[in-house]
Amino acid sequence: MSESKSPFTPISSLGEFKLIDRIVEGFECVHPSTIKGIGDDSAVVHTSQHQVITTDLLTEGIHFDLMYSPLKHLGYKAVVVNLSDIYAMNARPKQILVSLALSNRFSVEAVDELYEGVRSACKKYNVDLIGGDTTSSPKGLTISITAIGEAPYEKIVFRNTAKEGDLLVVSGDLGAAYIGLQLLEREKQIFLENPSIQIDLKGHDYTVGRQLKPEARMDIVEILEKMDIVPTSMIDISDGLSSEILHLCKQSNVGCILHEEFVPIDQNTYNTALSFNIDPINCALSGGEDYELLFTIHPKDAEKIKNHPDMSIIGEITDVNLGIKLHSKGDNYYDLISMGWDNLDVEK
Amino acid sequence: MSESKSPFTPISSLGEFKLIDRIVEGFECVHPSTIKGIGDDSAVVHTSQHQVITTDLLTEGIHFDLMYSPLKHLGYKAVVVNLSDIYAMNARPKQILVSLALSNRFSVEAVDELYEGVRSACKKYNVDLIGGDTTSSPKGLTISITAIGEAPYEKIVFRNTAKEGDLLVVSGDLGAAYIGLQLLEREKQIFLENPSIQIDLKGHDYTVGRQLKPEARMDIVEILEKMDIVPTSMIDISDGLSSEILHLCKQSNVGCILHEEFVPIDQNTYNTALSFNIDPINCALSGGEDYELLFTIHPKDAEKIKNHPDMSIIGEITDVNLGIKLHSKGDNYYDLISMGWDNLDVEK
Repeated sequence: MSESKSPFTPISSLGEFKLIDRIVEGFECVHPSTIKGIGDDSAVVHTSQHQVITTDLLTEGIHFDLMYSPLKHLGYKAVVVNLSDIYAMNARPKQILVSLALSNRFSVEAVDELYEGVRSACKKYNVDLIGGDTTSSPKGLTISITAIGEAPYEKIVFRNTAKEGDLLVVSGDLGAAYIGLQLLEREKQIFLENPSIQIDLKGHDYTVGRQLKPEARMDIVEILEKMDIVPTSMIDISDGLSSEILHLCKQSNVGCILHEEFVPIDQNTYNTALSFNIDPINCALSGGEDYELLFTIHPKDAEKIKNHPDMSIIGEITDVNLGIKLHSKGDNYYDLISMGWDNLDVEK
Repeated sequence: MSESKSPFTPISSLGEFKLIDRIVEGFECVHPSTIKGIGDDSAVVHTSQHQVITTDLLTEGIHFDLMYSPLKHLGYKAVVVNLSDIYAMNARPKQILVSLALSNRFSVEAVDELYEGVRSACKKYNVDLIGGDTTSSPKGLTISITAIGEAPYEKIVFRNTAKEGDLLVVSGDLGAAYIGLQLLEREKQIFLENPSIQIDLKGHDYTVGRQLKPEARMDIVEILEKMDIVPTSMIDISDGLSSEILHLCKQSNVGCILHEEFVPIDQNTYNTALSFNIDPINCALSGGEDYELLFTIHPKDAEKIKNHPDMSIIGEITDVNLGIKLHSKGDNYYDLISMGWDNLDVEK
C-alpha cells in the first residue's frame, strides 16, 4: 500500500497501435487450434473438438481495489476467474481475448505490469492470447476477458445433470479468499487512518494469496481424467458454496443434503474468521471467490476419491421433494439459502 | 434529448440471476453450431469450419454519449461494430457474448431497452446470443462484446495479403457517421445552453442514422460471394479511410495510390461538412465509424464490380517503394497520413 515509484509514461504518448505491438511482443501462440492471433480484424481458430466459451467483466471499485491488488496479480486473477469457468465444464482452456478500458491515471508501465500477470497465467495454464481491445475510460480500469476451451463432447460436464444418489464433492478448501479480503480491507482502513503504521499481514499469506492471486483447478480436472471419472455435474465456486449448490440442484431438479462437518475449511481461515467474529462455515457458504470446483459423482466412483487429500465428499443428492438442506454439526437440518457475501455479518 | 419518463425499477430489486433470466427470455439460439447458450459456466459451440473471433469494449463518455444515443440504438450499434470485424474477414457471424457493467443510475427498463437493440441486431444478422456477464460499475455504462463467425479457411481474407497491381475498393460512402456526430454534438451544446430550444436535425436523417445506428456490410460479403470474388485483402473502416489504408498497406508490405476524386461521399455529408467548414474529404479520410469494408481485388475482377452502385474502385496497390499516396483532385500527390478523428479541425 504505497505510491508506485516507477516511471510514468502516458499511454497517449505511445498510441493504441504501438501499445498493442508492445503487448503482443511478450506473447506467443502455441496451440494448433490457434490459426491466427492478434493483428487482424479478428483472430482465427480451428478445432475438431467442441468448444466452451465464457466471459467476465471486472470493474475497479466493484471487483478489485488497486490499493491492495498489485496490477500483476490483478492481470493473473482476471484470467484465472475465466479459466475456472472452462474447467468447470471439464474442458481445457486454449485461447483468451483480453480487453482493457483505462483512464489516463494508468501509464504504459501499469499496462506492462497488468499484462505480466496475464502472460504469467497464460504460461501456467497453457493458453494463447489471441485478441482484445485497448481503449480509454473516463474513470478507473475495466477488464473484460473471454476464454475459449476445448473438450470432446462426451467429456463436457453441465450443471443440470446431477442425479439422486450422486455424491457432492468439492475441491480444496473454502472461505479463505473471503477472509483474505477481510484482512486486506482491515489493513486498508488502518492505513487510511494512519499511513505511518506498517501494514501487518504476517501469518496470513495463505488467505491473502487466495484473494489476490487465486488459481483455477486445472489439477483437479487432470486428476479426475486420470482416475477415469467424469463428474455427473459440475460448477465452479465464485459466489459461495450455498449459491452454487442451489444453482446445481435447481437446474438439475434435485434435492441435496450438505453436511457441515465435512465442508473443508483451512485452519488459518477458521481461526481468522473467529477473530473477526464470523462463523467460519459462513465464510465457506457465502464468502465466494474460492474458484474451487463443486461437482457430483456417481457413488461407484466414491472409492477412488474418498482418500484424496484435495477433494472432500460433502453431501449427497436427494429427491427434489426433500429440498436443499444443510445438516449442521449440531445435527439439525436447515434450508440452505443463498446470501451472497454482501450480506455476511462482519464485525470488525 | 429529454429525461426518460419510463418507470425506474432498480436492478438490485431483481438481482443478477433474475435479470439474466429476463434477458435470456427474448433470445433464441438458431445456429446448428450453438450447442448450448446461456445457463452454465460456459456456452458450448461446435463447428467444422474455421472460426473468426473478435471483441470490442465500449465505455460511456468515450465511445457513446447517452444524451443523444438511445439505449436501443446503442445496443444495436455495439453488436454491429463487432459483426463488422467478422465480415471484414469475409466470414459470417454466428454467436455473440454480451457483457454489461452498469451503475445504479440504470434501471431494469434501461437494460431491457439496451437488449432490445441487441436482439434486433441478432435477428437482422442472424446471430445467437450465447453468453455474457452482467455486473455493477461505480460509474457509467460499459459494454463488452465478443463475436464469433465462421468461414471455410480458403475464404477467410486477411489484411496482409494485398498485392501490387490489385485494385482498392470501398463499399458504400464515407464520412457520414462523423458528420452525424458533429450534428449531434452541436445540438447537444445548444440544448445544454437552452433546454427550451427544440433540437433540429431535420434533413439529416442519413448522417445522424449512420452515427447512431450503423449497419455492418453483410450484403457486400454476400454480393462478393455471388460474384465469385474473394478479395485479396480486407479490413473494415472504423478509424477512417487513411488509417485503414495504412494498416492494410503496411501489413501487406505494399504501396498505394488513393484517388481523391473516386472516394465516395454522400451529398448530404458533403454539404453539411462544408457548413461546418470541414473539407469533406477529411471526413472520409479521418472521420471513422463508417463500418464500410475496404478491400483489394485482383484486376481480373474489376469488370464484375465496376458498375456496382455500392462499391467504388478508389485506388491501386503499388510497389512498397512508391509509398502510400493521396492523388488529390488538383492532381498533386501527398503522403497519406493517419490523423484519427481527434485531430480533425472542426470549426463549429
